[in-house]
Amino acid sequence: MNRTLMTDFYEFTMAQTYFDRNETHKIGYFDIFFRRNPFDGGYSISGGLDEIIDYVNGFSFTGEDIDYLRSQSCFSDAFLEYLRELKFTGDVYAVEDGTPVFPQEPVLTVRANVIEAQLCETALLAAFNHGTLVTTAARRICEAAGGAPVMEFGARRARGIASAVEASKYAFVGGCGGTSNVLAAKLYDIPALGTMAHSLVCDADDEYSAFLSYAKSNPDNCLFLVDTFNVLKSGVPNAIRVARDFLLPNGYKFKGIRIDSGDLAYLSKQARRLLDEAGFQDTAICLSNGLDEKTILSLRHQGACFNLLGAGDNIAAANERVGGVYKLVAIEENGVTVPKIKVTNDSSKTVTPGFKQLYRFYDKASGFALGDVVALDEDKIPTDCFTLTSHIEEWKTKTITDYNVKNLRIKVFENGRQIYKMPDVHERRAYCEEQMKTLYPEVLRSSNPQEYYVDLTHRLSNLRKELIKKALAR
Amino acid sequence: MNRTLMTDFYEFTMAQTYFDRNETHKIGYFDIFFRRNPFDGGYSISGGLDEIIDYVNGFSFTGEDIDYLRSQSCFSDAFLEYLRELKFTGDVYAVEDGTPVFPQEPVLTVRANVIEAQLCETALLAAFNHGTLVTTAARRICEAAGGAPVMEFGARRARGIASAVEASKYAFVGGCGGTSNVLAAKLYDIPALGTMAHSLVCDADDEYSAFLSYAKSNPDNCLFLVDTFNVLKSGVPNAIRVARDFLLPNGYKFKGIRIDSGDLAYLSKQARRLLDEAGFQDTAICLSNGLDEKTILSLRHQGACFNLLGAGDNIAAANERVGGVYKLVAIEENGVTVPKIKVTNDSSKTVTPGFKQLYRFYDKASGFALGDVVALDEDKIPTDCFTLTSHIEEWKTKTITDYNVKNLRIKVFENGRQIYKMPDVHERRAYCEEQMKTLYPEVLRSSNPQEYYVDLTHRLSNLRKELIKKALAR
Repeated sequence: MNRTLMTDFYEFTMAQTYFDRNETHKIGYFDIFFRRNPFDGGYSISGGLDEIIDYVNGFSFTGEDIDYLRSQSCFSDAFLEYLRELKFTGDVYAVEDGTPVFPQEPVLTVRANVIEAQLCETALLAAFNHGTLVTTAARRICEAAGGAPVMEFGARRARGIASAVEASKYAFVGGCGGTSNVLAAKLYDIPALGTMAHSLVCDADDEYSAFLSYAKSNPDNCLFLVDTFNVLKSGVPNAIRVARDFLLPNGYKFKGIRIDSGDLAYLSKQARRLLDEAGFQDTAICLSNGLDEKTILSLRHQGACFNLLGAGDNIAAANERVGGVYKLVAIEENGVTVPKIKVTNDSSKTVTPGFKQLYRFYDKASGFALGDVVALDEDKIPTDCFTLTSHIEEWKTKTITDYNVKNLRIKVFENGRQIYKMPDVHERRAYCEEQMKTLYPEVLRSSNPQEYYVDLTHRLSNLRKELIKKALAR
Repeated sequence: MNRTLMTDFYEFTMAQTYFDRNETHKIGYFDIFFRRNPFDGGYSISGGLDEIIDYVNGFSFTGEDIDYLRSQSCFSDAFLEYLRELKFTGDVYAVEDGTPVFPQEPVLTVRANVIEAQLCETALLAAFNHGTLVTTAARRICEAAGGAPVMEFGARRARGIASAVEASKYAFVGGCGGTSNVLAAKLYDIPALGTMAHSLVCDADDEYSAFLSYAKSNPDNCLFLVDTFNVLKSGVPNAIRVARDFLLPNGYKFKGIRIDSGDLAYLSKQARRLLDEAGFQDTAICLSNGLDEKTILSLRHQGACFNLLGAGDNIAAANERVGGVYKLVAIEENGVTVPKIKVTNDSSKTVTPGFKQLYRFYDKASGFALGDVVALDEDKIPTDCFTLTSHIEEWKTKTITDYNVKNLRIKVFENGRQIYKMPDVHERRAYCEEQMKTLYPEVLRSSNPQEYYVDLTHRLSNLRKELIKKALAR
């Protein structure tokens, strides 16, 4: 199914306005940025670029789409014929999926004729907002897990079947060790993981025989779910019996148990003791049950014993939003880029004007990210010394030297042609992992993190002030 | 793309266990139910049945799927060959989309061989959870709007492009008047709605000329966005000027204005005054900006003037979860239905056993819903007098007479064949609207609603107690 029509109706009414004004060659610059990190966190991880690339590559209206628009009785024939031939012919700049990003940063810029750029808005935002939310949620859960692998289990709580597949992919990029979602596993070559469900035990009535038959059919996959009746009195002892009666005698490993209800701290410590006493020091304990960052940190604080975690709801169905927006920041008039601004009653909604780039400073010695600067495209970033200024409190500055500076954005489309090869999910995951190591622990902290420095160059900051003044003077 | 593989990996390891136990003809009953209403509300609205029907109808593994499973090196050839031929051959009972439903009710039951039933779980839950969440979110916003039409604007904040299309559909069923999402509008014949964005005004620099050119291109669609610079000093006066200079002289209506930032209560009242003074009493005011139920109720409380609302984030991207689960409740052994139960450390996770039906009592005189009763399939529901008992406090009872009783569930699939014709979204929306009228205002209240009566028949209640006792005795 062609998805180009997944756009807001007003994009068409505005596009018709541009068309009627003979502005089909007018170039606009639109930025995607967001205003706060989800989860009250110190960072976000960019995601969704793969879906954005797919959408842009497929951008074209079918005859059926045009007929539908005609049926609305509000578009002229000339405009509809124009739409029929429309392709995306612009440029797209974006940070790569898996990059830590921060509020107010231009994570993506579309430079295209205003009609193409407007019509793309809705789908680009939906893809970015979803990808960034899930990648960030997964990363935060993985950080909380402190190195224990996290299996992503969330498909059943996701926002529909298609969304579940995308979510499992983003969760993997964010750091999860694998997914229970077999379709996502197949499509993206992600490890497919899983244990067993309560239904198998309930069905059998007798936990031992349920475990035994499961073990016989899945001897290499034996993570027994031990909480159907009673974890310590029934589940763990039955799992141990099956290990001794069947797994070990036949040369298989007793891989692990999973606890999915009850007090996970208490039960996991007691289960660990039972397993250790039975000689199964290498048998893993997996915990699950609506785990979120807070619960994981709290469980670790209490010395819960676990080797891996299952998380679903709070990744694929995280109760949060990224809130990325797509705003006009410049137009080209006679080959000259003219910065644009929006100043509304809500000052937090004021945009940063101009065609910009995004640079990150890394400390040469430690590799840590010292801060970012948003710059006008033509700005030169000094390679020896730079003074970062806090957005909120301008007297708060930090002068840095001995850094490497990197432009975080790459050119993804040039004149409508994709010139960036999207890395596969394994490459994206490795890149994310590596980028995360550049963030100071203060920024990574789950609660009340230190705010990461995001500065504007002096020229950009002055331009912004000047345009705000002009807008207010009108 | 075949989506049958959108299922959890453990469904396959369990299915292999059933297969190896020669239980491919064993029939299981699985219920979908949820444990609490989202938004701490008094009701939920069922959704997602259309996606469920699509999934079940398409349930079949491709050769490529089988190859993928084989590559996991944990499934036997015999089992894989079995999967290659597998189709869904069971029955599905479900409440219709748009039905108000309540915690612990069996909103859907799958009766099928245990392998088919297990393999369907994940997709059915993803569809139900998404559909029910968005339909409920939309309904609650519409209830808060108190009759003012709500336009659904949420595509850009949805969980990906595909999820956005589904969300717009569910929002319409829940009561929204239309959607900004053109693809959803086309696919489901939903009114496509929209106004204009700030970019058109920013681009033009001059608000009057932006409005004028928009009006010329879209004379029948003139809802001007008036908050780019200053609502009262610039936006509304410029809209009035364009109405007088262009719309009225050319025989068009000045349909409305939209305010998307600032204090919506204050600004809308002042804007109303300006419009009225200028003779535009019929010009509508549309409010938007992250509106949720609470804000809408609060705006109404302060006398905000609006004729329609735009809501997006809190419908398509509602920060909530339905948390529907899919649990084994019975198996058939030699033609006899044997109820099953799961009793875990968390008592809230205990299931209601047996193959059940769901009945609703309507007061004959007023038409109001008096309560629901969950019954064993073979239970007869008296047509003259029934005593409802509170789940939580068993001394709390309500005896009802003079009612009509209705089995809320219909049979959707019989022996794998779809026997229910899914109503179109307009029919679903009308049905939902009508069903909502049967709920007492006490249940509809946005905050701290009265708990709706959901009872079990005596036989079912006794069966449940008995099975819990047995499970605990083991």
